[in-house]
Amino acid sequence: MVEIRTPISVSEAVARVQAEAVRLGSEFVPIEEAYGRILAEPLIAAHDVPFFDRSPYDGFAIRSKDSVGASGSGRVAFEVVDHIGAGAVSDKKVGKRQAVRIMTGAQLPQGADAVVMLEQTQETAGAADVEGTETNASFTIRKPFEAGENISFRGEDMRSGEEILPAGSLVHPGTIALLATFGYERLEVAKLPVVGILSTGTELLEQGSALEPGKIRNSNGPMIAAQLRRMGVRGRMYAAAVDRLDDMLDTVRQALTECDCLITTGGVSVGDFDLLPAVYERLGAKVLFNKVAMRPGSVTTVAVLDGRYLFGLSGNPSACYTGFELFARPALLRMMGAQRVYPMQTRAILGEDFGKANPFARFVRAVYDGERVVPAGFNKSNAVSSIGRGNALIVLPGGTRGFKAGDTVDVILPGMEEGSAVWNL
Amino acid sequence: MVEIRTPISVSEAVARVQAEAVRLGSEFVPIEEAYGRILAEPLIAAHDVPFFDRSPYDGFAIRSKDSVGASGSGRVAFEVVDHIGAGAVSDKKVGKRQAVRIMTGAQLPQGADAVVMLEQTQETAGAADVEGTETNASFTIRKPFEAGENISFRGEDMRSGEEILPAGSLVHPGTIALLATFGYERLEVAKLPVVGILSTGTELLEQGSALEPGKIRNSNGPMIAAQLRRMGVRGRMYAAAVDRLDDMLDTVRQALTECDCLITTGGVSVGDFDLLPAVYERLGAKVLFNKVAMRPGSVTTVAVLDGRYLFGLSGNPSACYTGFELFARPALLRMMGAQRVYPMQTRAILGEDFGKANPFARFVRAVYDGERVVPAGFNKSNAVSSIGRGNALIVLPGGTRGFKAGDTVDVILPGMEEGSAVWNL
Repeated sequence: MVEIRTPISVSEAVARVQAEAVRLGSEFVPIEEAYGRILAEPLIAAHDVPFFDRSPYDGFAIRSKDSVGASGSGRVAFEVVDHIGAGAVSDKKVGKRQAVRIMTGAQLPQGADAVVMLEQTQETAGAADVEGTETNASFTIRKPFEAGENISFRGEDMRSGEEILPAGSLVHPGTIALLATFGYERLEVAKLPVVGILSTGTELLEQGSALEPGKIRNSNGPMIAAQLRRMGVRGRMYAAAVDRLDDMLDTVRQALTECDCLITTGGVSVGDFDLLPAVYERLGAKVLFNKVAMRPGSVTTVAVLDGRYLFGLSGNPSACYTGFELFARPALLRMMGAQRVYPMQTRAILGEDFGKANPFARFVRAVYDGERVVPAGFNKSNAVSSIGRGNALIVLPGGTRGFKAGDTVDVILPGMEEGSAVWNL
Repeated sequence: MVEIRTPISVSEAVARVQAEAVRLGSEFVPIEEAYGRILAEPLIAAHDVPFFDRSPYDGFAIRSKDSVGASGSGRVAFEVVDHIGAGAVSDKKVGKRQAVRIMTGAQLPQGADAVVMLEQTQETAGAADVEGTETNASFTIRKPFEAGENISFRGEDMRSGEEILPAGSLVHPGTIALLATFGYERLEVAKLPVVGILSTGTELLEQGSALEPGKIRNSNGPMIAAQLRRMGVRGRMYAAAVDRLDDMLDTVRQALTECDCLITTGGVSVGDFDLLPAVYERLGAKVLFNKVAMRPGSVTTVAVLDGRYLFGLSGNPSACYTGFELFARPALLRMMGAQRVYPMQTRAILGEDFGKANPFARFVRAVYDGERVVPAGFNKSNAVSSIGRGNALIVLPGGTRGFKAGDTVDVILPGMEEGSAVWNL
């Protein structure tokens, strides 16, 4: 008996999943371990940056008014009265026609309001050497300087109290630089979700087993573990006698007491051994959808129970891969309060014809080079090679026509560290 | 005294760095730990995939010749003689007007050469139930099937012995799916480089210190550690009395006995406390360049000694960030034998005017949304906020004009997991 399922659009399916996200709590981690996490609180500037007026160049701090009238034929001379490296503060006040030799990043001495770059000067006596001992030098300049010229002013980069990054930002290397600037040693981030993985399918052999007639090795479980790993999450593996409803049910119940989310692969179709629909029913889970107008993975099913997700991904590897990126990853990021939950999406030139028209939207594993995108070889929902070879997904809208080389198409880039806040599926 | 340095182009600088890469050895890791590593050997298909002719659908395996002439007004009936789930193999040979109920992924039974999808049938007696006990059913079809219809043939995805991925491929989730398919439990990958980090600068406070007059906290060291972490490498921190040449020299020598590569920040300019040029000279290191026609980071210096890199990055945070992504990361990936050593590069619409013309190429920290790219706020080489806020780098060629909103510009996406084999700088 064929169960009739009503397909919904991909964007509707994504929206239904997103609407069910329950926020995880937060925890503190050392800054060294914060990479890839999601900020639980906005990042507020703890002080002005720079914290003092400073020199962006190696050169000499002067009073700009002393440079008035300087020209090639009427060079103005300055006496060097002090010599400070970055981190040092001069105790001299710069007086008339005086200068302080200053290094990049050093605090501007009192009295000075401009910096002459080293290469804008001509030395006239006694160079200061590497050891910094000799300071009685002098130099001339050939142009006037304005007040404020070549100065990095206190607070010009960030103002004390300013929100630098909103809560929900991904911690990437630039974020780490900010945190270090403000002296953070630990950071409040969203907890990572605990995600269970259960691969169903009576044909599956466990990892490392020898092949047996009619059977295949389980590739979906390790693949999803790696998709989770890519987002910094460690998956927890479950196993069940997948042809026995009671055993499946026990395993899923157990997983739901230990996990925020359970991802199953296989068992969501209408085959006689597809037990997930019965599992959802027995659990009393709310099924958000069990048919999506997409290829591959139209049987993808998502349910929720007590604030926990049950992602029922297709057992076909390409469909499984796509289902994770389309539904599970954005949901997990939403649970962490991320601002950008969707993978980066862009447009690219299709590199070859894609003839097959389909009423459903199609996601094609593909190789993207920054300009063109080409399907990654053999393209069936049960193909594995194309997932291994691809770095992108082409998104082809459903319709009655195929696509031609040269067409501009949408592309999803699942490997991009920072994702997108919007999605145009 | 101003040292005269001759700038070289960014692409020339990158090429010089790449040319010095010494290959690291390989090691075996469990497949669970292989994510993000670089394949040391090509991945060869250990067997055909699929390993047997199989059904891509839930349905019935039949002999196509029995379906000849089937039509809506002349339906043809089949008797179901066996019922197999995925992973099971039927011991029945399909005879005349016989069918075997077959699940997605199951091996095609003997005698059958086509699969009728479940939804293409009309049941006429005794449905097989979920437990699979009842098999004496029958159904009719209304169209003929061709030999081979709805069959996934042995080897159609991958052929035994075929090179699926070349050595140097990044292990991403799709790669893991391939490895699992072929039963790998461990994998030969390039060793990770040991990378030292030494932040120089007399103005630097250690992490977590209270601010002092004229000083700033060290943000470059933690940032580079995170840039390394993004590529799966753990940095090793070094410290030295950075205003004393002998101490610097000792530290750098020590680091070079322990690391494949040492990244320093600061100290490469022409300031009086910039000791790195003297360090390179005393070590007898070969300086590849000490001036690059780029902003920020024109003083970026790269040297090599006994097959080890010395990356002398600018102490300015934005310059430091950019220098790592432009020079260090591609070099480390080359040491691992990676096929794609450069970050993904694409083109985007500039979202606002960028007026400043510069004879040097300019790299601007920016926010990219898949279509447009906008500078990430305050743009000076010593800015930190823009690194924290950006997810991309705009590449503006050197020249005499600025750039206008609406111009198409090159963009580097440092967060992209899979990079590029070519670079158009």
